[in-house]
Amino acid sequence: MASEIRALVFDVWGTVVDWRSSVLDELFALGRQRGLTIDWEAFLAEWQGTYNPGKEKVNNGELPWTTVEAIYRQALDRLLVRYKITGLADSEIEHLNRVWTRMRPWPDSVAGFTLLKRRYVLSTLSNGSFAWLIAIARFAGLPFDCIISAENARCYKPRSEVYLTALSLLARKPEEVMLVAAHNYDLRAARALGMGTAFVARPTEFGPHQTKDLKPEQDWDVVAADMIDLARKMGAV
Amino acid sequence: MASEIRALVFDVWGTVVDWRSSVLDELFALGRQRGLTIDWEAFLAEWQGTYNPGKEKVNNGELPWTTVEAIYRQALDRLLVRYKITGLADSEIEHLNRVWTRMRPWPDSVAGFTLLKRRYVLSTLSNGSFAWLIAIARFAGLPFDCIISAENARCYKPRSEVYLTALSLLARKPEEVMLVAAHNYDLRAARALGMGTAFVARPTEFGPHQTKDLKPEQDWDVVAADMIDLARKMGAV
Repeated sequence: MASEIRALVFDVWGTVVDWRSSVLDELFALGRQRGLTIDWEAFLAEWQGTYNPGKEKVNNGELPWTTVEAIYRQALDRLLVRYKITGLADSEIEHLNRVWTRMRPWPDSVAGFTLLKRRYVLSTLSNGSFAWLIAIARFAGLPFDCIISAENARCYKPRSEVYLTALSLLARKPEEVMLVAAHNYDLRAARALGMGTAFVARPTEFGPHQTKDLKPEQDWDVVAADMIDLARKMGAV
Repeated sequence: MASEIRALVFDVWGTVVDWRSSVLDELFALGRQRGLTIDWEAFLAEWQGTYNPGKEKVNNGELPWTTVEAIYRQALDRLLVRYKITGLADSEIEHLNRVWTRMRPWPDSVAGFTLLKRRYVLSTLSNGSFAWLIAIARFAGLPFDCIISAENARCYKPRSEVYLTALSLLARKPEEVMLVAAHNYDLRAARALGMGTAFVARPTEFGPHQTKDLKPEQDWDVVAADMIDLARKMGAV
Protein backbone atom coordinates (compact mmCIF):
# COMPACT_ATOMS: atom_id res chain seq x y z
CA MET A 1 0.00 0.00 0.00
CA ALA A 2 2.53 2.53 1.22
CA SER A 3 4.57 2.27 -1.97
CA GLU A 4 1.99 4.00 -4.18
CA ILE A 5 1.02 6.72 -1.72
CA ARG A 6 2.65 10.12 -2.31
CA ALA A 7 0.44 12.43 -0.26
CA LEU A 8 -1.48 12.14 3.01
CA VAL A 9 -4.54 14.32 3.52
CA PHE A 10 -5.84 14.71 7.04
CA ASP A 11 -9.14 15.33 8.61
CA VAL A 12 -8.30 17.88 11.31
CA TRP A 13 -10.88 18.38 14.10
CA GLY A 14 -10.82 15.21 16.16
CA THR A 15 -8.22 13.47 14.02
CA VAL A 16 -5.29 15.85 14.51
CA VAL A 17 -6.42 18.24 17.24
CA ASP A 18 -8.35 17.73 20.47
CA TRP A 19 -11.10 20.28 19.95
CA ARG A 20 -13.30 19.30 22.88
CA SER A 21 -10.89 19.71 25.77
CA SER A 22 -9.39 22.81 24.15
CA VAL A 23 -12.74 24.55 23.72
CA LEU A 24 -13.94 23.45 27.18
CA ASP A 25 -10.84 24.93 28.84
CA GLU A 26 -11.62 28.33 27.36
CA LEU A 27 -15.30 28.10 28.23
CA PHE A 28 -14.45 27.18 31.84
CA ALA A 29 -12.05 30.14 31.98
CA LEU A 30 -14.73 32.46 30.61
CA GLY A 31 -17.15 31.22 33.26
CA ARG A 32 -14.69 31.80 36.09
CA GLN A 33 -13.74 35.22 34.79
CA ARG A 34 -17.36 36.37 34.52
CA GLY A 35 -18.78 34.48 37.49
CA LEU A 36 -21.15 32.44 35.33
CA THR A 37 -22.72 29.17 36.50
CA ILE A 38 -23.27 27.29 33.29
CA ASP A 39 -23.09 23.64 32.26
CA TRP A 40 -20.34 24.26 29.74
CA GLU A 41 -20.28 20.65 28.57
CA ALA A 42 -23.93 20.95 27.58
CA PHE A 43 -23.25 24.36 26.03
CA LEU A 44 -20.43 22.90 23.93
CA ALA A 45 -22.47 19.84 22.94
CA GLU A 46 -25.20 22.14 21.65
CA TRP A 47 -22.72 24.43 19.92
CA GLN A 48 -20.83 21.62 18.22
CA GLY A 49 -24.17 19.96 17.46
CA THR A 50 -25.00 22.75 15.00
CA TYR A 51 -22.15 21.67 12.72
CA ASN A 52 -23.72 18.57 11.18
CA PRO A 53 -27.14 20.12 10.42
CA GLY A 54 -25.37 23.21 9.04
CA LYS A 55 -23.15 21.30 6.67
CA GLU A 56 -26.08 19.13 5.56
CA LYS A 57 -28.09 22.23 4.65
CA VAL A 58 -25.22 23.35 2.44
CA ASN A 59 -24.82 19.90 0.89
CA ASN A 60 -28.52 19.50 0.11
CA GLY A 61 -28.81 23.00 -1.31
CA GLU A 62 -30.97 24.55 1.43
CA LEU A 63 -28.13 26.98 2.15
CA PRO A 64 -25.63 28.54 -0.26
CA TRP A 65 -21.95 27.90 0.57
CA THR A 66 -21.45 28.87 4.22
CA THR A 67 -18.21 28.39 6.15
CA VAL A 68 -18.07 26.48 9.41
CA GLU A 69 -17.02 29.70 11.10
CA ALA A 70 -20.26 31.34 9.98
CA ILE A 71 -22.28 28.30 11.11
CA TYR A 72 -20.61 28.39 14.52
CA ARG A 73 -20.93 32.16 14.83
CA GLN A 74 -24.68 32.12 14.12
CA ALA A 75 -25.11 29.30 16.64
CA LEU A 76 -22.99 31.14 19.21
CA ASP A 77 -25.09 34.27 18.91
CA ARG A 78 -28.22 32.21 19.64
CA LEU A 79 -26.60 30.30 22.52
CA LEU A 80 -25.36 33.48 24.21
CA VAL A 81 -28.94 34.72 24.34
CA ARG A 82 -30.35 31.42 25.53
CA TYR A 83 -27.72 30.95 28.24
CA LYS A 84 -28.12 34.62 29.23
CA ILE A 85 -24.44 35.41 28.69
CA THR A 86 -24.42 39.18 28.29
CA GLY A 87 -21.95 42.03 28.19
CA LEU A 88 -19.61 40.60 25.56
CA ALA A 89 -18.40 43.09 22.97
CA ASP A 90 -18.60 41.98 19.35
CA SER A 91 -14.81 41.59 19.27
CA GLU A 92 -15.04 39.32 22.33
CA ILE A 93 -17.74 37.19 20.71
CA GLU A 94 -15.64 36.94 17.56
CA HIS A 95 -12.63 35.95 19.66
CA LEU A 96 -14.75 33.32 21.41
CA ASN A 97 -15.96 31.94 18.08
CA ARG A 98 -12.36 31.61 16.97
CA VAL A 99 -11.72 29.26 19.89
CA TRP A 100 -12.17 26.56 17.23
CA THR A 101 -8.77 27.59 15.86
CA ARG A 102 -6.97 27.55 19.24
CA MET A 103 -6.67 23.84 19.73
CA ARG A 104 -4.08 21.57 21.20
CA PRO A 105 -2.86 18.88 18.83
CA TRP A 106 -3.15 15.34 20.17
CA PRO A 107 0.21 14.62 21.83
CA ASP A 108 1.42 12.44 18.93
CA SER A 109 0.37 14.73 16.05
CA VAL A 110 3.35 17.06 15.69
CA ALA A 111 5.92 14.28 16.14
CA GLY A 112 4.08 12.02 13.70
CA PHE A 113 3.76 14.79 11.11
CA THR A 114 7.45 15.60 11.38
CA LEU A 115 8.28 11.99 10.56
CA LEU A 116 5.66 11.64 7.83
CA LYS A 117 6.65 14.90 6.14
CA ARG A 118 10.06 13.51 5.22
CA ARG A 119 8.40 11.03 2.89
CA TYR A 120 4.95 12.38 2.04
CA VAL A 121 3.25 15.61 1.09
CA LEU A 122 0.95 16.49 4.00
CA SER A 123 -2.27 18.42 3.47
CA THR A 124 -5.39 19.17 5.42
CA LEU A 125 -8.65 17.87 3.95
CA SER A 126 -11.10 19.32 6.39
CA ASN A 127 -14.52 20.90 6.49
CA GLY A 128 -12.94 23.86 8.27
CA SER A 129 -12.59 27.07 6.32
CA PHE A 130 -9.30 27.74 4.54
CA ALA A 131 -8.46 30.67 6.84
CA TRP A 132 -9.35 28.74 10.00
CA LEU A 133 -7.21 25.80 8.91
CA ILE A 134 -4.23 28.13 8.50
CA ALA A 135 -4.84 29.42 12.03
CA ILE A 136 -5.18 25.87 13.41
CA ALA A 137 -1.92 24.76 11.79
CA ARG A 138 -0.07 27.82 13.09
CA PHE A 139 -1.47 27.57 16.63
CA ALA A 140 -0.67 23.86 16.95
CA GLY A 141 2.65 24.01 15.08
CA LEU A 142 1.55 21.41 12.52
CA PRO A 143 3.94 21.33 9.55
CA PHE A 144 1.40 20.87 6.75
CA ASP A 145 2.74 21.43 3.23
CA CYS A 146 -0.51 23.02 2.14
CA ILE A 147 -4.10 23.67 3.13
CA ILE A 148 -7.01 22.13 1.24
CA SER A 149 -10.49 22.78 2.58
CA ALA A 150 -14.08 21.98 1.75
CA GLU A 151 -14.12 25.68 0.91
CA ASN A 152 -12.05 24.91 -2.20
CA ALA A 153 -14.97 22.78 -3.42
CA ARG A 154 -17.70 24.94 -1.84
CA CYS A 155 -19.45 21.92 -0.33
CA TYR A 156 -18.72 19.60 2.58
CA LYS A 157 -17.31 16.14 3.12
CA PRO A 158 -18.52 13.49 2.50
CA ARG A 159 -19.51 15.00 -0.88
CA SER A 160 -17.17 13.54 -3.48
CA GLU A 161 -16.36 17.00 -4.89
CA VAL A 162 -14.25 17.75 -1.82
CA TYR A 163 -11.98 14.71 -2.25
CA LEU A 164 -11.83 15.18 -6.03
CA THR A 165 -10.80 18.80 -5.59
CA ALA A 166 -7.91 17.65 -3.40
CA LEU A 167 -6.81 15.06 -5.98
CA SER A 168 -6.95 17.69 -8.70
CA LEU A 169 -4.95 20.29 -6.74
CA LEU A 170 -2.38 17.70 -5.71
CA ALA A 171 -2.26 16.44 -9.32
CA ARG A 172 -2.44 12.88 -8.07
CA LYS A 173 -4.43 9.76 -8.86
CA PRO A 174 -6.77 8.48 -6.13
CA GLU A 175 -4.47 5.55 -5.29
CA GLU A 176 -1.59 7.98 -4.68
CA VAL A 177 -3.41 9.87 -1.93
CA MET A 178 -4.42 8.52 1.47
CA LEU A 179 -7.02 10.08 3.74
CA VAL A 180 -6.18 9.93 7.43
CA ALA A 181 -9.23 10.27 9.66
CA ALA A 182 -10.70 9.28 13.00
CA HIS A 183 -14.14 9.04 11.37
CA ASN A 184 -15.38 6.03 9.44
CA TYR A 185 -17.88 8.06 7.35
CA ASP A 186 -15.01 10.13 5.94
CA LEU A 187 -12.92 7.07 5.05
CA ARG A 188 -15.91 5.42 3.36
CA ALA A 189 -16.24 8.40 1.01
CA ALA A 190 -12.50 8.39 0.23
CA ARG A 191 -12.43 4.64 -0.45
CA ALA A 192 -15.43 4.94 -2.78
CA LEU A 193 -13.21 7.14 -4.98
CA GLY A 194 -10.25 4.77 -4.87
CA MET A 195 -8.17 6.68 -2.35
CA GLY A 196 -6.06 5.06 0.35
CA THR A 197 -7.52 5.04 3.85
CA ALA A 198 -5.94 5.23 7.30
CA PHE A 199 -7.95 5.10 10.51
CA VAL A 200 -6.58 6.62 13.71
CA ALA A 201 -8.94 6.07 16.63
CA ARG A 202 -9.54 9.07 18.87
CA PRO A 203 -11.82 7.47 21.47
CA THR A 204 -12.09 10.58 23.66
CA GLU A 205 -12.74 13.12 20.90
CA PHE A 206 -16.30 13.53 22.18
CA GLY A 207 -15.38 13.03 25.82
CA PRO A 208 -15.38 10.07 28.17
CA HIS A 209 -18.73 8.70 27.02
CA GLN A 210 -18.03 8.58 23.29
CA THR A 211 -19.92 5.81 21.52
CA LYS A 212 -19.02 6.23 17.83
CA ASP A 213 -15.84 5.75 15.81
CA LEU A 214 -14.23 3.76 18.60
CA LYS A 215 -12.93 1.30 16.04
CA PRO A 216 -12.53 0.75 12.31
CA GLU A 217 -15.77 -0.27 10.61
CA GLN A 218 -14.06 -1.58 7.48
CA ASP A 219 -10.70 -3.11 6.66
CA TRP A 220 -9.07 0.27 6.11
CA ASP A 221 -5.65 0.11 4.44
CA VAL A 222 -3.94 1.18 7.64
CA VAL A 223 -5.22 1.21 11.20
CA ALA A 224 -2.84 3.12 13.44
CA ALA A 225 -2.83 3.81 17.17
CA ASP A 226 -1.70 7.39 16.59
CA MET A 227 0.29 9.54 14.13
CA ILE A 228 3.66 8.17 15.24
CA ASP A 229 2.38 4.64 14.69
CA LEU A 230 1.07 5.77 11.30
CA ALA A 231 4.54 7.05 10.40
CA ARG A 232 5.96 3.66 11.34
CA LYS A 233 3.36 1.78 9.33
CA MET A 234 3.89 4.06 6.33
CA GLY A 235 7.62 3.46 6.30
CA ALA A 236 8.50 7.00 7.34
CA VAL A 237 10.52 6.10 10.43
CA MET B 1 1.36 50.38 6.69
CA ALA B 2 2.65 47.35 8.53
CA SER B 3 0.03 47.69 11.26
CA GLU B 4 -2.93 46.69 9.06
CA ILE B 5 -1.20 43.87 7.22
CA ARG B 6 -1.94 40.36 8.47
CA ALA B 7 -0.81 38.19 5.58
CA LEU B 8 1.96 38.36 3.00
CA VAL B 9 1.46 36.65 -0.34
CA PHE B 10 4.51 36.02 -2.47
CA ASP B 11 5.22 35.74 -6.10
CA VAL B 12 7.59 32.77 -6.24
CA TRP B 13 9.64 32.33 -9.44
CA GLY B 14 12.15 35.16 -9.48
CA THR B 15 10.94 36.73 -6.24
CA VAL B 16 11.66 33.88 -3.84
CA VAL B 17 13.67 31.38 -5.87
CA ASP B 18 16.44 31.78 -8.43
CA TRP B 19 14.95 29.76 -11.28
CA ARG B 20 17.45 30.71 -13.98
CA SER B 21 20.68 29.56 -12.38
CA SER B 22 18.96 26.49 -10.93
CA VAL B 23 17.56 25.37 -14.29
CA LEU B 24 20.81 26.21 -16.12
CA ASP B 25 22.82 24.05 -13.70
CA GLU B 26 20.69 21.03 -14.54
CA LEU B 27 20.80 21.73 -18.26
CA PHE B 28 24.60 22.03 -18.19
CA ALA B 29 24.78 18.73 -16.28
CA LEU B 30 22.51 17.06 -18.83
CA GLY B 31 24.73 18.33 -21.63
CA ARG B 32 27.92 17.01 -20.02
CA GLN B 33 26.30 13.68 -19.22
CA ARG B 34 25.09 13.16 -22.78
CA GLY B 35 27.97 14.85 -24.61
CA LEU B 36 25.69 17.49 -26.14
CA THR B 37 26.99 20.78 -27.51
CA ILE B 38 24.09 23.12 -27.06
CA ASP B 39 23.72 26.80 -26.16
CA TRP B 40 21.77 26.10 -23.00
CA GLU B 41 21.24 29.76 -22.22
CA ALA B 42 19.45 30.17 -25.53
CA PHE B 43 17.56 26.91 -24.93
CA LEU B 44 16.38 28.16 -21.53
CA ALA B 45 15.46 31.60 -22.88
CA GLU B 46 13.26 29.95 -25.49
CA TRP B 47 11.77 27.54 -23.00
CA GLN B 48 10.98 30.21 -20.41
CA GLY B 49 9.79 32.45 -23.24
CA THR B 50 6.81 30.17 -23.82
CA TYR B 51 5.41 31.06 -20.40
CA ASN B 52 4.08 34.54 -21.18
CA PRO B 53 2.35 33.65 -24.48
CA GLY B 54 0.91 30.51 -22.82
CA LYS B 55 -0.61 32.36 -19.89
CA GLU B 56 -1.94 35.07 -22.19
CA LYS B 57 -3.74 32.48 -24.30
CA VAL B 58 -5.44 31.20 -21.16
CA ASN B 59 -6.31 34.70 -19.99
CA ASN B 60 -7.79 35.77 -23.31
CA GLY B 61 -9.78 32.57 -23.70
CA GLU B 62 -7.83 31.05 -26.62
CA LEU B 63 -6.92 28.12 -24.36
CA PRO B 64 -8.94 26.51 -21.57
CA TRP B 65 -7.26 26.45 -18.15
CA THR B 66 -3.79 24.97 -18.64
CA THR B 67 -1.15 24.68 -15.91
CA VAL B 68 2.31 26.12 -16.30
CA GLU B 69 3.66 22.60 -16.09
CA ALA B 70 1.63 21.64 -19.16
CA ILE B 71 2.77 24.79 -20.99
CA TYR B 72 6.40 24.01 -20.20
CA ARG B 73 6.03 20.33 -21.05
CA GLN B 74 4.56 21.05 -24.49
CA ALA B 75 7.33 23.55 -25.16
CA LEU B 76 9.98 21.11 -23.94
CA ASP B 77 8.74 18.39 -26.29
CA ARG B 78 9.10 20.82 -29.22
CA LEU B 79 12.52 22.05 -28.09
CA LEU B 80 13.92 18.55 -27.69
CA VAL B 81 13.08 17.86 -31.33
CA ARG B 82 14.44 21.16 -32.56
CA TYR B 83 17.70 20.89 -30.60
CA LYS B 84 17.97 17.23 -31.68
CA ILE B 85 18.12 15.93 -28.11
CA THR B 86 17.15 12.30 -28.48
CA GLY B 87 17.10 9.13 -26.44
CA LEU B 88 15.31 10.50 -23.36
CA ALA B 89 12.67 8.20 -21.90
CA ASP B 90 9.32 9.76 -21.10
CA SER B 91 10.11 9.57 -17.39
CA GLU B 92 13.38 11.44 -18.05
CA ILE B 93 11.57 14.15 -20.00
CA GLU B 94 9.03 14.47 -17.21
CA HIS B 95 11.84 14.70 -14.67
CA LEU B 96 13.51 17.39 -16.79
CA ASN B 97 10.26 19.35 -16.99
CA ARG B 98 10.02 19.25 -13.21
CA VAL B 99 13.34 21.09 -12.99
CA TRP B 100 11.10 24.13 -12.46
CA THR B 101 10.35 22.77 -8.98
CA ARG B 102 14.01 22.09 -8.05
CA MET B 103 15.12 25.62 -7.42
CA ARG B 104 17.45 27.25 -4.97
CA PRO B 105 15.87 29.99 -2.90
CA TRP B 106 17.64 33.33 -3.04
CA PRO B 107 20.07 33.29 -0.11
CA ASP B 108 17.89 35.60 2.02
CA SER B 109 14.53 33.89 1.39
CA VAL B 110 14.44 31.18 4.06
CA ALA B 111 15.87 33.43 6.77
CA GLY B 112 13.48 36.24 5.85
CA PHE B 113 10.47 33.92 5.81
CA THR B 114 11.40 32.50 9.21
CA LEU B 115 11.36 36.01 10.65
CA LEU B 116 8.22 37.12 8.81
CA LYS B 117 6.28 33.99 9.75
CA ARG B 118 6.36 34.92 13.42
CA ARG B 119 4.15 37.90 12.69
CA TYR B 120 2.37 37.23 9.39
CA VAL B 121 0.58 34.45 7.57
CA LEU B 122 2.75 33.59 4.56
CA SER B 123 1.24 32.27 1.33
CA THR B 124 2.33 31.80 -2.22
CA LEU B 125 0.42 33.77 -4.85
CA SER B 126 2.02 32.44 -7.97
CA ASN B 127 1.14 31.41 -11.49
CA GLY B 128 2.73 28.04 -10.74
CA SER B 129 0.40 25.09 -10.36
CA PHE B 130 -0.71 24.14 -6.86
CA ALA B 131 1.22 20.84 -6.97
CA TRP B 132 4.39 22.46 -8.32
CA LEU B 133 4.27 25.15 -5.63
CA ILE B 134 4.13 22.45 -2.95
CA ALA B 135 7.20 20.84 -4.54
CA ILE B 136 9.03 24.18 -4.73
CA ALA B 137 8.34 24.97 -1.08
CA ARG B 138 9.49 21.50 0.02
CA PHE B 139 12.64 21.54 -2.13
CA ALA B 140 13.71 25.01 -0.97
CA GLY B 141 12.61 24.56 2.65
CA LEU B 142 10.31 27.59 2.52
CA PRO B 143 7.97 27.69 5.53
CA PHE B 144 4.80 28.87 3.79
CA ASP B 145 1.61 28.56 5.84
CA CYS B 146 -0.39 27.66 2.75
CA ILE B 147 -0.30 27.46 -1.01
CA ILE B 148 -2.50 29.68 -3.17
CA SER B 149 -2.06 29.42 -6.93
CA ALA B 150 -3.50 30.89 -10.09
CA GLU B 151 -4.92 27.36 -10.40
CA ASN B 152 -7.35 28.18 -7.58
CA ALA B 153 -8.82 30.88 -9.85
CA ARG B 154 -8.20 29.00 -13.11
CA CYS B 155 -6.66 32.04 -14.78
CA TYR B 156 -3.33 33.83 -14.47
CA LYS B 157 -1.95 36.93 -12.81
CA PRO B 158 -2.39 39.80 -13.48
CA ARG B 159 -6.10 38.89 -13.84
CA SER B 160 -7.87 40.29 -10.78
CA GLU B 161 -9.61 36.94 -10.10
CA VAL B 162 -6.31 35.50 -8.88
CA TYR B 163 -5.75 38.16 -6.22
CA LEU B 164 -9.45 38.18 -5.25
CA THR B 165 -9.39 34.39 -4.81
CA ALA B 166 -6.48 34.79 -2.40
CA LEU B 167 -8.31 37.47 -0.40
CA SER B 168 -11.39 35.27 -0.22
CA LEU B 169 -9.48 32.16 0.91
CA LEU B 170 -7.51 34.16 3.47
CA ALA B 171 -10.77 35.82 4.60
CA ARG B 172 -9.04 39.18 4.58
CA LYS B 173 -9.74 42.65 3.24
CA PRO B 174 -7.39 43.94 0.51
CA GLU B 175 -5.64 46.33 2.89
CA GLU B 176 -4.81 43.41 5.21
CA VAL B 177 -2.85 41.51 2.57
CA MET B 178 0.43 42.57 0.97
CA LEU B 179 1.81 41.17 -2.26
CA VAL B 180 5.58 40.72 -2.29
CA ALA B 181 7.02 40.58 -5.79
CA ALA B 182 10.07 41.37 -7.87
CA HIS B 183 7.80 42.34 -10.79
CA ASN B 184 6.17 45.72 -11.15
CA TYR B 185 3.29 44.38 -13.30
CA ASP B 186 2.21 42.10 -10.48
CA LEU B 187 2.29 44.87 -7.87
CA ARG B 188 0.29 47.18 -10.14
CA ALA B 189 -2.52 44.60 -10.28
CA ALA B 190 -2.47 44.12 -6.49
CA ARG B 191 -2.51 47.86 -5.81
CA ALA B 192 -5.45 48.34 -8.16
CA LEU B 193 -7.46 46.12 -5.80
CA GLY B 194 -6.34 47.98 -2.67
CA MET B 195 -3.77 45.44 -1.51
CA GLY B 196 -0.46 46.36 0.10
CA THR B 197 2.61 46.16 -2.13
CA ALA B 198 6.25 45.29 -1.43
CA PHE B 199 8.93 45.33 -4.11
CA VAL B 200 12.07 43.23 -3.73
CA ALA B 201 14.48 43.78 -6.63
CA ARG B 202 16.02 40.64 -8.13
CA PRO B 203 18.30 42.23 -10.71
CA THR B 204 19.85 38.95 -11.89
CA GLU B 205 16.64 36.91 -12.16
CA PHE B 206 17.04 36.92 -15.95
CA GLY B 207 20.82 36.80 -15.88
CA PRO B 208 23.59 39.39 -16.05
CA HIS B 209 21.95 41.42 -18.84
CA GLN B 210 18.53 41.90 -17.28
CA THR B 211 16.85 45.13 -18.33
CA LYS B 212 13.43 45.06 -16.65
CA ASP B 213 12.24 45.29 -13.05
CA LEU B 214 15.60 46.61 -11.91
CA LYS B 215 13.81 49.13 -9.74
CA PRO B 216 10.38 50.07 -8.41
CA GLU B 217 8.21 51.81 -11.00
CA GLN B 218 5.76 53.21 -8.45
CA ASP B 219 5.93 54.29 -4.84
CA TRP B 220 5.21 50.79 -3.55
CA ASP B 221 4.37 50.62 0.16
CA VAL B 222 7.65 48.89 0.92
CA VAL B 223 10.81 48.65 -1.15
CA ALA B 224 13.17 46.10 0.36
CA ALA B 225 16.66 44.95 -0.58
CA ASP B 226 15.76 41.34 0.20
CA MET B 227 13.48 39.23 2.42
CA ILE B 228 15.48 39.90 5.57
CA ASP B 229 15.25 43.63 4.91
CA LEU B 230 11.51 43.15 4.31
CA ALA B 231 11.18 41.47 7.71
CA ARG B 232 12.93 44.44 9.28
CA LYS B 233 10.74 46.96 7.49
CA MET B 234 7.59 45.01 8.40
CA GLY B 235 8.47 45.01 12.09
CA ALA B 236 9.09 41.27 12.24
CA VAL B 237 12.65 41.45 13.59
